[in-house]
Amino acid sequence: MRKVILGVAISLDSFIEGSKGEYDWCFTDQDYGLSDFLKRVDTMFLGRKTYELTLTMAANGDSGFPNLKEYIFSNTLNKVKEGATLIKGDIKTEVEKIKEEKGKDIWLFGGAGLTTSLLNLGLVDELSLAVHPVLLGSGKPLFSNIKDRINLTLVDTKTFSTGLVSLTYTLET
Amino acid sequence: MRKVILGVAISLDSFIEGSKGEYDWCFTDQDYGLSDFLKRVDTMFLGRKTYELTLTMAANGDSGFPNLKEYIFSNTLNKVKEGATLIKGDIKTEVEKIKEEKGKDIWLFGGAGLTTSLLNLGLVDELSLAVHPVLLGSGKPLFSNIKDRINLTLVDTKTFSTGLVSLTYTLET
Repeated sequence: MRKVILGVAISLDSFIEGSKGEYDWCFTDQDYGLSDFLKRVDTMFLGRKTYELTLTMAANGDSGFPNLKEYIFSNTLNKVKEGATLIKGDIKTEVEKIKEEKGKDIWLFGGAGLTTSLLNLGLVDELSLAVHPVLLGSGKPLFSNIKDRINLTLVDTKTFSTGLVSLTYTLET
Repeated sequence: MRKVILGVAISLDSFIEGSKGEYDWCFTDQDYGLSDFLKRVDTMFLGRKTYELTLTMAANGDSGFPNLKEYIFSNTLNKVKEGATLIKGDIKTEVEKIKEEKGKDIWLFGGAGLTTSLLNLGLVDELSLAVHPVLLGSGKPLFSNIKDRINLTLVDTKTFSTGLVSLTYTLET
């Protein structure tokens, strides 16, 4: 079965963006394993806000992540861009169906709301966190409103000269 | 000058205790570098709640950490146990004075309130975090109410077979 992998950059205090939505603290000077990661996946899960952020970035000339099938999770949107698929309503059934389909693994790109929903439903198989050497102090926490304790198994760590630490865990499901 | 080192166990979602005050998730099966750490320090900083927790533990037969000079930070306590020193009022002046004194480094053991105060005053020199492979979901966050972004320099990482990752950072002060 295809795995759902939460792959995001976080600060040491577990924020995915600063209090003004800023992500200028995210390192862009090198690949940090992204190329290898992209070989594992062919699909992306995005929450509404993250999807809208990628639209803004695309409008500003950032072409985003090519060749990934996108699923947008939103109960408020009525349509999404061409080629993408809107998921609303019963997330659990829909995600389980997608995970059963043939294909590579699935990149859960965020945001926090979708991450919480999928973690609470036990639908996330792996965490791949790029822990940046910074305390943002405030902002949007990656992990919020998680109902129950989730035990993890560390499967990989990579330390980069810039101080970024990549931590990979599988979830005990 | 003596360094103030924040040395604590945290969950991957940056909690130092669960929502019911529980710390049963903290690994105790091996040393995890504590013996080496204790050689570096001769003094401990504790907030009131953490101090009271250590008193309860001592009453239950846990002898705690011997041979460390203890400073208890509290504006509500009027006295502390024999041998310990109560700090109230102008934390900055008091801590700067202690850091100027001869001696080994100082273990900032917590809790969250004292940690926040000392981080915001720029009085913490190093973070040594034992990141446990668990998402607690809720509880007491280690980092809260930090005013400004704090850049860190990663100086050491250690990965243990149990999945605990020890991360050490210095603060850019």
